Amino acid sequence: MTQPDIQKKLLEQIRGIYALRAALSLHGWDQETKMPIGGGGSRAFVMAELAGHLHKAMTHPEMFDLLDSVALETSGSPEWKACVKAMRKDCLRKAKLPISLDKALVQAASLAQHAWSEARNHGNPSGFLPLFRQLVHLKREEADCLREPGQSKYEALLQTYEPGVTLAMIEPVFDSLEVGLTGIVEHLRENGGLIKPPPFPGTFPRGQQKSYLKDMLPRLGFDMRRGRLDESAHPFSEGITREDVRLTVRYHEDNFLDSYFSLLHEGGHGLYEQGFDEEWLMTPMAEAVSLGVHESQSRFWENCVGRSREYWEGEYPLLVQYFPAALGSIDLDSFMRRVQSVHPSAVRVQADEITYNMHILLRFRLEKLIVEGDLGIDELESAWNSEMQRWFWLTPDHLNEGYLQDVHWAAGLFGYFPTYTLGNLWAAQIREKLIEVFPRYHFMVREGHFGPILEWLRQNIHRQARKTNSIELMRNATGCELDSDSFLRYLRERYIT
Amino acid sequence: MTQPDIQKKLLEQIRGIYALRAALSLHGWDQETKMPIGGGGSRAFVMAELAGHLHKAMTHPEMFDLLDSVALETSGSPEWKACVKAMRKDCLRKAKLPISLDKALVQAASLAQHAWSEARNHGNPSGFLPLFRQLVHLKREEADCLREPGQSKYEALLQTYEPGVTLAMIEPVFDSLEVGLTGIVEHLRENGGLIKPPPFPGTFPRGQQKSYLKDMLPRLGFDMRRGRLDESAHPFSEGITREDVRLTVRYHEDNFLDSYFSLLHEGGHGLYEQGFDEEWLMTPMAEAVSLGVHESQSRFWENCVGRSREYWEGEYPLLVQYFPAALGSIDLDSFMRRVQSVHPSAVRVQADEITYNMHILLRFRLEKLIVEGDLGIDELESAWNSEMQRWFWLTPDHLNEGYLQDVHWAAGLFGYFPTYTLGNLWAAQIREKLIEVFPRYHFMVREGHFGPILEWLRQNIHRQARKTNSIELMRNATGCELDSDSFLRYLRERYIT
Repeated sequence: MTQPDIQKKLLEQIRGIYALRAALSLHGWDQETKMPIGGGGSRAFVMAELAGHLHKAMTHPEMFDLLDSVALETSGSPEWKACVKAMRKDCLRKAKLPISLDKALVQAASLAQHAWSEARNHGNPSGFLPLFRQLVHLKREEADCLREPGQSKYEALLQTYEPGVTLAMIEPVFDSLEVGLTGIVEHLRENGGLIKPPPFPGTFPRGQQKSYLKDMLPRLGFDMRRGRLDESAHPFSEGITREDVRLTVRYHEDNFLDSYFSLLHEGGHGLYEQGFDEEWLMTPMAEAVSLGVHESQSRFWENCVGRSREYWEGEYPLLVQYFPAALGSIDLDSFMRRVQSVHPSAVRVQADEITYNMHILLRFRLEKLIVEGDLGIDELESAWNSEMQRWFWLTPDHLNEGYLQDVHWAAGLFGYFPTYTLGNLWAAQIREKLIEVFPRYHFMVREGHFGPILEWLRQNIHRQARKTNSIELMRNATGCELDSDSFLRYLRERYIT
Repeated sequence: MTQPDIQKKLLEQIRGIYALRAALSLHGWDQETKMPIGGGGSRAFVMAELAGHLHKAMTHPEMFDLLDSVALETSGSPEWKACVKAMRKDCLRKAKLPISLDKALVQAASLAQHAWSEARNHGNPSGFLPLFRQLVHLKREEADCLREPGQSKYEALLQTYEPGVTLAMIEPVFDSLEVGLTGIVEHLRENGGLIKPPPFPGTFPRGQQKSYLKDMLPRLGFDMRRGRLDESAHPFSEGITREDVRLTVRYHEDNFLDSYFSLLHEGGHGLYEQGFDEEWLMTPMAEAVSLGVHESQSRFWENCVGRSREYWEGEYPLLVQYFPAALGSIDLDSFMRRVQSVHPSAVRVQADEITYNMHILLRFRLEKLIVEGDLGIDELESAWNSEMQRWFWLTPDHLNEGYLQDVHWAAGLFGYFPTYTLGNLWAAQIREKLIEVFPRYHFMVREGHFGPILEWLRQNIHRQARKTNSIELMRNATGCELDSDSFLRYLRERYIT
């Protein structure tokens, strides 16, 4: 084959691999949003079969032949080279995993996730625990297959979500973050700043919420022709392809802020997914570099923008028009005290942007123990509760507010939580950079003039896709190394001064 | 390998094939109900890739080895033998089709279907026609690959939906049906019986419609734990697996009858899909024997049951309670005149149960010409309109009420339409058989006591799955050969005497 033939053939193979990933992604989205409860068993089986086809496609000798033949070629755009490099990396990693284990993992994760949701509905984990134990067992096996010499099991799993980032890189940052966060919370506590806001005096009609959010997404730059918005028990976003990006939200009539911020959050993820280059559809150049960077996009919109005073100076009058019953008697100052309220909570997704990271540190430390085999599933509830006491001086009222609150572990996503805090750290670095690049940044946010901000994100982050790893990408974009400085500065500016 | 090993391995392969079919089915459902408009291009590509994996799985030498090795075995249940026989047939048929053509067909059908829906939205077929032409071209190629010696192109495609049924078997039946139908319509016309009912005096609020239909499905025996109900532009049902059966409906506030009968119809399909044996999940023994038999199930519930006076004697009081504004002033007799009204219409899905079959005969004759290359796409509009004149003495007001009204051709489903009329003929035979088996049949229908009827269908039709072909299945179940006698008797009883 000539080089152009090889390139063409390889691109076809890559797109075929991404087609299977897109199919798995649709099945995952559907399981969370639409699938009838009785469909869980066969759904898990179908997903395992798709994972098997994916495994075969990624580990086929022809694929490695093509990757080897094309790599010799020194021509080609930087994007194409990045595609080949990323694909080779993914395929080599996939080849470390026996296909039977790969399929078993997908099936076990689908089943455990389904059982988790049933356990929450019935407030009883007995059906979930055996499946969860089995899943943890398989995850440990997976980690053993994947880990490089000198890598711990946990670190091997972390690579799935944050490639190239080691525990040695994040643990010192998380430690200094802990000191900083504890200091801020202490300060607030001493100054009476930990206050749970009172309920709103009126309700937020569901239909109004829906239409508000549907209007809001295009204002941020989200393309509704290439996306949709649904309801699900737990908000999430799923980028099936850059042409089909799905967000979910849930509505509470007594509090629109939850839905609002969670959609700003998922919208941030969605903007990233929609922001890849059309030309590289269904290749590694239309894929997030890491989940930490993904989270930096959601947290930037949710918190850096969405919880800022300047944002609400522009947005609040419109919100009051939509929800006069709930907001008519609340002025911007007291609304901002709700938006920026800080108080410990048992539930991560209800946490403010400060204590949120304590939830992550708690999970990060527990999941390391689980993966390494140092914490059994039987001990999880008591370990969880004692950590909750240590961090938040509280005990969950119910398992659903305890270790059953998050789907992640039930879906086999060990090593995923730290990316949430990495996202927060990076979002604050991005914000500092944007303030430097756009002297009128605060004004732009107040006016809802997001175009230039989104374009900067597109150019410096989204369209970079997997050209490099997350650490280097963020260094190139913001000039910063991974640290907690920007984030702590940002929190102190917003919550202390 | 020992026989048990071969059997186990073969069953695994069969389930793997059905897993890919289920994945394709979910993608199809999603395309019609949820996919954002911009997702069409990559959806078509993903579906083509899945079709490629399916093709490979069905034509792999290992698959034929297993089929050959297991076939020698004379032990095994009749169900297992039927599975092996059906699977061999499907794989041999698949092997006649080059994989590139198979993938191209799936992609072209997905694209054309998407473009069809856009064409209808914009009332302009110019974007659709080139894709449709390409699809027809590929369908002719497909037919050439599939046809047996002496088979026409059209007959080869018909096998996809109605295996084992030839044109020689259906054409004489359709001809005598035409004579019978024409006679009934003539009679009604002469006696002033062709009347379009006036609008209802009030509306049917959408929310009420939804809750009525959600309650109705379980009363028929549909298991909502293994199914769901959505909205779509065109009602359909999709059995992803027997554990996940999805129905769609659309709501018109000015007329609930459309939604009502279309859900009875889709519900009948859904009962069939849910009625397969759990043990044979994801095998040919959990698959419809043919689309004609599938349609017999939907038409039985929609028409034989749902348009009968006895049914409404039981159901109407409840309906009036739900919709007092629309129905409070209408008594059962005048309601029945609406339910059983007969009048020519340009639109198939709005047709009564008599003229409906004229729509099918019209399409059957046109699509034979298209597939054989005797009618070009350029001539379709005028051919359609002159046939409409011949059958119904009318000309469609708009392409959306002309040849763009049905999705079938746009989705590549040539040879599919005749199964609708076969379904009507068989539904009438089933009804006659049920009246014989259950002397209190009419009473059971009035009381909504459907359990024994459904159980008879389950045993004689649903759980038979693909044990035999449709003609033999119906002969075993009803004692009848394929003919139009029962159906014409049923129509005359309901509409003439």
